[in-house]
This record gives sequence, C-alpha cells and structure tokens, in this order.
Amino acid sequence: MEDKHMLMIPGPTPVPEKVLLAMAKRPIGHRSGDFSKIIAEINDNLKWLHQTKNEVLSLNVSGTGAMEAGIINFLSPGDKVLVGVNGKFGDRWAQICEVFGLNTVRISADWGQSLDTEEFRSHLEADSNKEIKGVIITHSETSTGVLNDLKTISTYIKAHGTALSIVDAVTSLGAYDVPVDGWELDVVASGSQKGYMIPPGLGFISVSDKAWQAYENCQFPRFYMDLGKYKKANQKSSTPFTPPVNLMYGLQVALQMMHREGLEGIFSRHSRLTAATRAAVKALGLKTFAPDDCASTAVTAVDPSPIGAEDIRKIMSSKYGIALAGGQDHLKGKIFRVGHLGFVSDRDMLTGIACLESTLIELGHNFSPQSGVKAASALMG
Amino acid sequence: MEDKHMLMIPGPTPVPEKVLLAMAKRPIGHRSGDFSKIIAEINDNLKWLHQTKNEVLSLNVSGTGAMEAGIINFLSPGDKVLVGVNGKFGDRWAQICEVFGLNTVRISADWGQSLDTEEFRSHLEADSNKEIKGVIITHSETSTGVLNDLKTISTYIKAHGTALSIVDAVTSLGAYDVPVDGWELDVVASGSQKGYMIPPGLGFISVSDKAWQAYENCQFPRFYMDLGKYKKANQKSSTPFTPPVNLMYGLQVALQMMHREGLEGIFSRHSRLTAATRAAVKALGLKTFAPDDCASTAVTAVDPSPIGAEDIRKIMSSKYGIALAGGQDHLKGKIFRVGHLGFVSDRDMLTGIACLESTLIELGHNFSPQSGVKAASALMG
Repeated sequence: MEDKHMLMIPGPTPVPEKVLLAMAKRPIGHRSGDFSKIIAEINDNLKWLHQTKNEVLSLNVSGTGAMEAGIINFLSPGDKVLVGVNGKFGDRWAQICEVFGLNTVRISADWGQSLDTEEFRSHLEADSNKEIKGVIITHSETSTGVLNDLKTISTYIKAHGTALSIVDAVTSLGAYDVPVDGWELDVVASGSQKGYMIPPGLGFISVSDKAWQAYENCQFPRFYMDLGKYKKANQKSSTPFTPPVNLMYGLQVALQMMHREGLEGIFSRHSRLTAATRAAVKALGLKTFAPDDCASTAVTAVDPSPIGAEDIRKIMSSKYGIALAGGQDHLKGKIFRVGHLGFVSDRDMLTGIACLESTLIELGHNFSPQSGVKAASALMG
Repeated sequence: MEDKHMLMIPGPTPVPEKVLLAMAKRPIGHRSGDFSKIIAEINDNLKWLHQTKNEVLSLNVSGTGAMEAGIINFLSPGDKVLVGVNGKFGDRWAQICEVFGLNTVRISADWGQSLDTEEFRSHLEADSNKEIKGVIITHSETSTGVLNDLKTISTYIKAHGTALSIVDAVTSLGAYDVPVDGWELDVVASGSQKGYMIPPGLGFISVSDKAWQAYENCQFPRFYMDLGKYKKANQKSSTPFTPPVNLMYGLQVALQMMHREGLEGIFSRHSRLTAATRAAVKALGLKTFAPDDCASTAVTAVDPSPIGAEDIRKIMSSKYGIALAGGQDHLKGKIFRVGHLGFVSDRDMLTGIACLESTLIELGHNFSPQSGVKAASALMG
C-alpha cells in the first residue's frame, strides 16, 4: 500500500509529525536574531540531553563526520590511540585513525560480543610513558546491537590521566543513560537520525575542557571541521558556516518533546522496548545476536537461522511495509536488526512483533502462536 | 506581523511550498530501493543543471565543506595554487589553502571589482615548469555581487594544461549559465540554499576526468570528505554515509521544478531580475557596488551612502518584514545586499523595490517618487 511504511531500522528512525511540520517552515536568515534564539534554546537542551556543562556543538555532517571531527581536532599524526573494534563502526573509527596516520592499536572482540574492559585497563596501566593519547569507543555498536561498557572503560582512561575518551554515542545518546559529566567523557559524538528523532543531516559533539586543552596542540589541518570555529560561534549562539536551518527547526521541536518526556522516561522506555523485543525474539525460538548483559537499547540483532534473515526482511517489507535492517559486511544475510530507538512506542514494538510472527508462520517456522506478542506484552505497560 | 517574513538575502533563499512539503515527508531507509531511485533521478538532474557528463556528488556539508572537499581531494601539501581573492569567499578559499599547507598565491582585486583575467594568464603562461596545480576561482562573489570572468580564466587554465580549475559556483550555479563541460571546468562546488531553491544542508561537487586523475595522487588524508568514496557509491545510486534524506526529498522536487522551467528560462529570469534591480537602485540615486559589466545575477550589493546601510536594513526588516543582507568584514555598515536568486519572481523584486522606496522616503532621501519601481518594471515581463 502506497506510503504505508514503518521504519524499524536503527536510523533513520521514525520522525514525529510535529518535527516534520517544523521542518516544512520557511527558512529564515541564519544570521538573524530570531535564529540565534533557536540556536540558544537548542544548545541548552543539548547540554541537558548530554547531562553536561560542556559545550555541545552542532555540525552539518553525518555521524561519521562528527566522529572524524572528534578525532582530527584533539590528536596529532603519530599519536598512539586504542580503538575498540567489535563491529562495523568500531572498524570504521580504526580506519579513520589509520587514514590520518595515528598509531592505531585495535582492541578487538568478536562481532556480537562486547569489548573486554580488562584489555583497556591493562594497556592503559602499562603505558607509563603516557604515549596513549586517545581511547576510541563505540558505545552502542549499531551493526551488532552490542552495548560496550563505556562507564568502566572511562574509569581506566581517567586513571591513566593523559588519554582522552572519544566516544561514538550515535545510537546510545537519547536511548541510554550517557551522563557525560558523570562519566567524565571528553569527546562524545552523535547523529540526528537516531535518538534525536529527526532526519539525518546533523552531527553533534560534546567537548570537555581537557579535550579543548588537547585541541590547542592538535597538528591536523582542518577548516570545515575545525571545532574551535564552532565553539567560538556557539558561544554567541551562532555557527561558523551556514547551518541546515530547517533541520534545526526540527531539532528544536524534538528536543522540546524529549524534555517533556524527561531523561528517566526516555531511558526507561528504551529499556522496556529492548527487554520486550528480546523476550519476544526468544519466545519465537530465534536467537538474539548480542548477549543479554550487553544488549544495546537502540537495536536488537537477531540470528534467525536456519530461517533466512533476508527472507524475513523481504516479507516484512513487501507484505507489512516494515523496514528491518540487514546484517553488514560478513553478517550480511545472517542476521536482521530491529531498531527500537527514538520515536518508538510500545504499540510500535507489538506491531513489529506481530508482523514478525506472521512472517515466521509464512516461512514455515515452528513455534507456539502468539508467543512473541505474549512475551513482549508481559513486559509492557 | 508574525510569520510574515520575506527573504531577500543571497542564501538561504526562498523555498517553494512544494519543496517544503516534500521535506515534511517521513524519511525512508537510505539503503532502500525506493531511495536509490530518488538518488538516481537527482543525479541525472544534477548533471543536467551542471551541463556536464561528469559525476556530480552530493555531500552532507555546507558550501564551504564542498569547497574544502574540492581542494583536499585533488591537491597535495606544498602544491602551488593561484587563488582569486576579491571578496570574503575568495579570501576564505585562500585561508583553506593556507591551513592545508598549499603554496598559495593570492591574485587579488579590490572588493567590488572583478579579478583581472590577465593576471591569471601571465602567471599561468610564465609557469613553464608546470608548478601550478590548481586555480581557485569564486565565480559569483556573494560578499560583493561581483561575477568573475570564469570563462576567460578557464581558457588560460586549459592552455596551461596541468592546473585544475577549482570553482566556487555557490551563487552562480542555477542563477547563471555555467556550462561545466563547455568551459571544461574540473571541480565545481555549490550549495543547496542558493539557486537550488532548497534549505541549507547539502553541498554539491562536479568532478572532471582530469580531476579524478589528480585524485589518484592526492596526499591529503581524508575520510568523511573523501570524494572517491562518494563516486563509488554514486555510481550505484547510493551514498557512502547516511545522507540527509529529507533534504534530498526537497532537492528532488526542486530539480523537477527547475527542469520544467528550463535552463534558458532560469538564466533569463535571473538576468532580468538583476537588470531590474540595478536599474531601480540607480533610479533611486543609490550606487551599485559592482560595475555593470561584472554584475552577479545572484545578488546586488548597494552602496547607499550617505544614507546608512544598516538604517535601511532595519526599516526594511521591522516595517516590511524583508530581510536584506548587510556588508561583511570591512564592508559592514557600508553596503547592503539584495538577493535575487532561486525562487524569486518579478513580483518579488517589485515588492522589494517598492518597500525600499518607502524606506528611503522615511529616511529623508531625496528622489523622484516611484522612480525605482518604474525603472524596474520597464525591464520586466
């Protein structure tokens, strides 16, 4: 049926009508007083969402651009960095570090498992010469649905004293408790099309005082992504380059909605949806790809073997208009991924689970009917 | 009066209702077949607008980001470049070149005058060792309303044989005839909030085969702005990173509208609006800042002395809800700038001129009443 789509991918996520309509307003001049007021309000709410007193900068880039900015503004060629790699995005940040000539040490775990915090501790403790300048962690690994233990790793980084924490919070911010000041995180990057509930196009980056000190010694050339320019402009409720005005309209409204729901409300909704999804998946006799103790609250990866992941995605899309994400790289065809972050309600999850049940019946899978919906609904409301 | 604004600045420019409403559609998955079709249609129309067979890439950046991408993908540290500087944007590109360690030779002209094409010819002809690797030209200098003679300079670049032309067409593309293949331009950057009639957030870049050859030898590290990644994805109607889906919806519709108007229609409308604006300004006894023979078709800068430019802008904004742009850098307070590019009609220009007349009366300026409207309307429809 035309235009009857439902996104259950981990980004872009569903966008509230209020936000869509805000984006349809005529642009005003980005150097006007009226627009400065919008920037000021957004800045306040970004700090609230990040639970920080740090400056949170908005860039006209995707999440990848925000992460690159987080790397090339605070490190220098040849610097030693530890990069956690247990999925596609960790691998991407390691690639960026390598492209920019950093001495890149990959701390790897199997895709679907969480990073071993002890490995970080031992590397950091052994580094008596303080050669490690940065530790790069993907908090929620979107490719596998694994949540890494950022809080613990951050304590080891603080104990080290020199290294900066540089965090991909693209699918954790707004879906999980990420207390930037509480965990003393230095650089935290995120993107608009995830927990923020707006379409893609904006990247965000929170920067600690310690990171700004490192910025002063950074040797990478940069202009468009020079965060010092954004900081200077931000303090005047402005931007160094033309901002995506209409996306900012949407962001303003989305942050107001998030503020009304409250951080507690947002986090508990995401953990409820996650628990319900995982319970349903198991009740249906499928396997969750990530273990329970490191489950992302943004996305659940499912291993449906021996049923084909692509067969499930195909029917879900063609028959029910629901977009699920597939596996990436070597997981292509082996898993599918269900997004449950951002503007997603209990009803949405039950809808998805009911359609998944129906799809599994069509594919001849043997399970107790209604078991998915029943398991999920037991955890709701 | 609330929400009764009218943009007459050189970006963001007015956005058609059709485009605004397209942007308010729910995002779909950016890796879906449906979205690939949108990208494919956009790519075809971008080639049409650029009058080129080259790949035209869409990036989630502002115009400045697109220009930086045009520089760091085709040159290497230490390369000698000529940069035309006769306004704020030429100066910005020279700054980027300097930040990235290029051997930057500024070919300057006074702000408000056009670049001397002979200076480019003599530098290029004298370069028998072919040390000049790039010539960077701002086609339409938004800060002053000057159109540089890109066509002539391009012939000297071609005669040189080695140097690439790297062009800021941010306020010329979609407002003036820029035949990329006809003029053999190598790298042409532009931004969405100008002639494209959509809000800010997307940068575009057209790349010639010769530039792709230079890309192979480029020594700058880059990842998010690595155009090779965009080319590879573009050829599959995809993007290397999450694109700003809703802005692409808007772009699709705006390009359809441009296609229906036709290149001839678009260019003749912009030159008519420019001629009418300049005739009116003169009839009102004010001075056009750029000479007639190098007038940008995107923006007209006006020197209203002895009347204060900021006094005019203030009344135009507070009384008539019309946003005019001020002067930048040392021209602040000395000129105002009237944008007439993108979704601007004859009626809009007459409206602006009538309100300007009224403002001048209020400021006690002595001129023959209705002379501006009369001079402009004589050149219209």
